[in-house]
Amino acid sequence: MFRKLLTFDEAKKAIDDQFKPVFLGEEEAVLLEAYNRVLNEDVVSGLDIPPFNRSTVDGYAVKAEDTFGAEENQPATLEVSGAVNVGEQPNVKVAKGEAVEIVTGAPIPEGADAVVMVEDTEREDAELKVFGAVTVNENVMKKGSDIKKGAVVLKKGQVLGSSEIGVLAALGLTKVKVLKIPMVAVLSTGAEVTEPGKELPSGKIYDINAYSISTAVIESGGKPVYFGVVPDDKAALSRALQTAVASADMVITSGGVSVGPRDYTPQIVDSLGKPGIVVYGIAVKPGKPTTVGFVGDKPVFSLPGHPTSALLIFYLLARPLIQRLAGRPATGMKMVRAFAGSRMFSAKGRRTFVMVKLEFDKDCRLIAEPVETGASGAITTLANADGFVEIAENEQFVDADEEVLVVLFRGSAARA
Amino acid sequence: MFRKLLTFDEAKKAIDDQFKPVFLGEEEAVLLEAYNRVLNEDVVSGLDIPPFNRSTVDGYAVKAEDTFGAEENQPATLEVSGAVNVGEQPNVKVAKGEAVEIVTGAPIPEGADAVVMVEDTEREDAELKVFGAVTVNENVMKKGSDIKKGAVVLKKGQVLGSSEIGVLAALGLTKVKVLKIPMVAVLSTGAEVTEPGKELPSGKIYDINAYSISTAVIESGGKPVYFGVVPDDKAALSRALQTAVASADMVITSGGVSVGPRDYTPQIVDSLGKPGIVVYGIAVKPGKPTTVGFVGDKPVFSLPGHPTSALLIFYLLARPLIQRLAGRPATGMKMVRAFAGSRMFSAKGRRTFVMVKLEFDKDCRLIAEPVETGASGAITTLANADGFVEIAENEQFVDADEEVLVVLFRGSAARA
Repeated sequence: MFRKLLTFDEAKKAIDDQFKPVFLGEEEAVLLEAYNRVLNEDVVSGLDIPPFNRSTVDGYAVKAEDTFGAEENQPATLEVSGAVNVGEQPNVKVAKGEAVEIVTGAPIPEGADAVVMVEDTEREDAELKVFGAVTVNENVMKKGSDIKKGAVVLKKGQVLGSSEIGVLAALGLTKVKVLKIPMVAVLSTGAEVTEPGKELPSGKIYDINAYSISTAVIESGGKPVYFGVVPDDKAALSRALQTAVASADMVITSGGVSVGPRDYTPQIVDSLGKPGIVVYGIAVKPGKPTTVGFVGDKPVFSLPGHPTSALLIFYLLARPLIQRLAGRPATGMKMVRAFAGSRMFSAKGRRTFVMVKLEFDKDCRLIAEPVETGASGAITTLANADGFVEIAENEQFVDADEEVLVVLFRGSAARA
Repeated sequence: MFRKLLTFDEAKKAIDDQFKPVFLGEEEAVLLEAYNRVLNEDVVSGLDIPPFNRSTVDGYAVKAEDTFGAEENQPATLEVSGAVNVGEQPNVKVAKGEAVEIVTGAPIPEGADAVVMVEDTEREDAELKVFGAVTVNENVMKKGSDIKKGAVVLKKGQVLGSSEIGVLAALGLTKVKVLKIPMVAVLSTGAEVTEPGKELPSGKIYDINAYSISTAVIESGGKPVYFGVVPDDKAALSRALQTAVASADMVITSGGVSVGPRDYTPQIVDSLGKPGIVVYGIAVKPGKPTTVGFVGDKPVFSLPGHPTSALLIFYLLARPLIQRLAGRPATGMKMVRAFAGSRMFSAKGRRTFVMVKLEFDKDCRLIAEPVETGASGAITTLANADGFVEIAENEQFVDADEEVLVVLFRGSAARA
């Protein structure tokens, strides 16, 4: 088994080298449920838009040549032979010397090739005076000029927002082919944890990670499969991991690593299939005992038991894989610039991530104040940390008042 | 009826003066479905966390006084009388001169008041040499030191992200009280539109707005109630609006405004209840024919039929109300700085919003290039516009190369 501690960058590379964003299949979604999904087809227009020559103003449909030479002092005089409203097929034609009343959006009647704006006319009964000339096609939106039948309107891989859903509706579609959402199995291990909702035995604490990581999976564009707490014995863990790998596209466990002889997960992952474990420990703080393996194409992450560390490593390493499986760009998390509220120390030779709380000081400067991590304060940290500051391996500390980039835990939905 | 055209700021004020973010009620959500919902209770911890004194290191639980004076050259010698693992209630006690082996996270056995790190010891069978003194409570996380039983851990009004869901799990909870999601009825009117999925009669086009606005409602933290296209006659529209007002918390119609005698919606809104229409037309471009009314506390927006204009006015005026009904902060949309790709003209005396497409030029500067709006290019605009640039009433234009702030259509989910 591969046991060298990797640097953060080496670990990322080892994961990237092994990871294939395999095609998870497609499904059909009705339009309202297609919101924020990833399109899995090029959408080709089945119709011309507009489907007919359309007036872009309120006025009169005419033959343009009947208006040539008309001006303020020398109007052309035409005879109004009918009217066309929106939404109806015109039952009138425009002959030489005639005009047909028309509103914005209504189809141009046969025989007409332009529309005179109502502001440029004066009408008395059927007699229409036109005080300005129009050219052929003036105030007419030609059939197919917006979208031609057969044109590719949306491309495979686009994320469907309000505008794109609107475009699909314009084509008359109510269903669309979208990529399947990656299923991510989430389970916790460790003798000390019990599932929330159950009675808490003496000496145990409630498991946090299966829930917090499941919601982080949703946030990243995946669908969590909640396995809860798996008993801390090798046979049970092996069965659970086998089921997880078989039923999901990716697996995330937490806890149970770095506990010496009880460190079952990596052994089981190695036994389930090639290539097995590719990252066995990372020179980061926190999150050092992280292991990452692959069973065939399926990534299996084993995160630390400490809730904040588990969530941090999830965001840094697992989230981009979920996004790529979902067919989305692996967008970074939101960041803000702030000033260090006090000196932040790094762990020697390890990439360090310092949890911080953001607050404005009296001068309205955004201050990043470190929050306590470590074994104590686990839940308080989780509740209070707004994000983290990264310190490189070769830096000793970030000094108070230095400008820092804070990566935000909240507001980083892939589904935004 | 109030028929004065309001400025954009007057219209916003008229809406704000009338709008009350009424309480829509609460519901219970299981933890995984509580993600991104708004908490409607103060969450009080029902237990001390940790629920017992806990070791923060691997080592030996001792009486601190037994180590006093111990140092590198003069170790204290203790007798190992047992071991405690994580997740179990200790069945040993620590008497004077004794030590109990302990791992990180395990409960401190009775009689012990500190833990010596394994690195500071040497063991041979039951004999333990301790090479440094510990103080009382050293390496011990006291019961309730993270969260005290009875403490308020999360506050009413908080949006539940991964961290907050984790905190709820830590308390052993699996359900939580959340605010109801506002229901927003969405309907289209106008003789020229047909619902997508139906056959397209001659002279008609497919309705875009009911779908694009419904998805924008989801994006804003509301739940759309899709009414589709309502026939363009007063009785049908009146029935539909009555049902919409009765069954939803807010109503959004589009189309059917500014068509003179066919401008039914405002009349019907006025007839349904007080205070009726409060905004009848806004001096903006596009979106001038927008009307806004209230039937009791329920806002009714009537947006223009032009899809891009409808979506724009939705984002500017309706979205903040949905967010506030949902109990969320009315967060603005995402913005980026860019350079105007060409001169953008404003409409005289009207607040103007110019739709733009964003592109990087060869120097990697972000350029905002205006896209055609108006009656032509409706769908192309919708597909191509990344956002808009706002031009104040008293400005004539924004010049090419001037720096502009682009409000983005995409990536503005309230649910992020």
